[in-house]
Amino acid sequence: MPNSPYLRTVFLVSDGTGITAETFGKSIMAQFDMPVRYVRLPFVDSLEKARKAVEQINTVAQNEGVRPIVFTTLVNMDVVHILNAETRAMVMDMFATFVNPLERELGIKSHHRVGRFSDVAKSQAYRDRMEAINFSLMHDDGQMNKGLEQSDVILIGVSRSGKTPTSLYLALQYGLKVSNYPLIPEDFERRQLPPSLLPFKPKLFGLTIQPERLSEIRNERRPGSRYASLENCRYEVAEAEAMMRRAGVRWLSTTTKSIEEIATTILQEVMPDGDY
Amino acid sequence: MPNSPYLRTVFLVSDGTGITAETFGKSIMAQFDMPVRYVRLPFVDSLEKARKAVEQINTVAQNEGVRPIVFTTLVNMDVVHILNAETRAMVMDMFATFVNPLERELGIKSHHRVGRFSDVAKSQAYRDRMEAINFSLMHDDGQMNKGLEQSDVILIGVSRSGKTPTSLYLALQYGLKVSNYPLIPEDFERRQLPPSLLPFKPKLFGLTIQPERLSEIRNERRPGSRYASLENCRYEVAEAEAMMRRAGVRWLSTTTKSIEEIATTILQEVMPDGDY
Repeated sequence: MPNSPYLRTVFLVSDGTGITAETFGKSIMAQFDMPVRYVRLPFVDSLEKARKAVEQINTVAQNEGVRPIVFTTLVNMDVVHILNAETRAMVMDMFATFVNPLERELGIKSHHRVGRFSDVAKSQAYRDRMEAINFSLMHDDGQMNKGLEQSDVILIGVSRSGKTPTSLYLALQYGLKVSNYPLIPEDFERRQLPPSLLPFKPKLFGLTIQPERLSEIRNERRPGSRYASLENCRYEVAEAEAMMRRAGVRWLSTTTKSIEEIATTILQEVMPDGDY
Repeated sequence: MPNSPYLRTVFLVSDGTGITAETFGKSIMAQFDMPVRYVRLPFVDSLEKARKAVEQINTVAQNEGVRPIVFTTLVNMDVVHILNAETRAMVMDMFATFVNPLERELGIKSHHRVGRFSDVAKSQAYRDRMEAINFSLMHDDGQMNKGLEQSDVILIGVSRSGKTPTSLYLALQYGLKVSNYPLIPEDFERRQLPPSLLPFKPKLFGLTIQPERLSEIRNERRPGSRYASLENCRYEVAEAEAMMRRAGVRWLSTTTKSIEEIATTILQEVMPDGDY
């Protein structure tokens, strides 16, 4: 019995972590307005695991009465073959589709190796990324002025404008050392940026937010407080924006943006040639 | 003049953040042993920006003397058309390739909307993710026993075994509330887990690491210290592993694993049906 006549189960099958298969499958399925249930099958790197995956997929096919959709990023051709030959599913094979034409274009053979994140785990880039996470944690919320000059980016903005998640995302995904600094009532009274930041103006990037949304977010943490009141949020946001405008600091509003969009916009500003 | 006869420039073009295009392009190119320079072109969401992208791509084609490779996740058909018609490049179009066959399979039309991460920015899932980041930050390094029962996972392990990056990754990418707790000499002397963790045994997950690697990592922070010495690292790791074994806590070694692989393995343990 299908749970719903429209629901489809979508399998994300990979020899590795399945992160690529997940990004691949979800971005394609996001083009359709329909309810979807995702099942991720990572580390399918042997014939035995391939047969277990086939069994799981075929059980769903039988229970739901429609073919499941299977997105794969498998490089082991034997595993691919079993999946294609034995599942009652629609198999979307990212690698077969694109790697073959590329082999012709480039005039070289692909090596069919599993894209192991662990290959990079020993690389300098990976160590830099770990270092960036530590740096960004230590320089979260204006905790530390020491080493500020090593920052790739310094985010500023009122409390709860999205600085911390953005910092951590940039560090985790791009290995950027990101500091963040709250703008607080003291700064507004003095009408200038925190003095420790002044030497690093080219690295500053501001985050702002609609006062209504800010008040909502702050009220989740400290309900009914003056800190969370709409009046205070309006005051802080207006002062922060005026200060950034005076200081010539670039800024963007996080109100309707996701961390991914905020991070991409910042990267474009910091590295405008897209070469990252 | 080409920089190198083998170098290719690979463009990652998207109407949105380009994160999907990047994952797509890099995973395909990782199948080839050749030097590649990536250029990401996000937010290409108008004809004007499409023409600028074409110009940029064609300039590279001319300078390098070989066709660039272009990976796209564009949904705007006019933008796709300009890119296909006017670039001297090999265009790999993820959406056109997979969306059309899916339309036939599903019997519905795709909506050709840009996969906006901001659509999710207002969703409950997105708020949960922000909440998970805050939770994981507050419960980093055993800082807080309060609210420990709300954790989805509690990571334990010796200092510098990879707990913090793993916690943040699980929170950022999967919205899991992850606490992490260091195992310290005091615990080893007492020969039992930190007492505050005992009620939450089913949520515990251990990280361990080769003593040699641990000593290397600790020496970067505190060179020549007893804390970083191989002898002390051997002692701590042996004690931590013995303690986890006695307590029946699942654990894995992070030595040769990336954060992505550690996180995926933990997710498989915590949610074994792959339904996340």
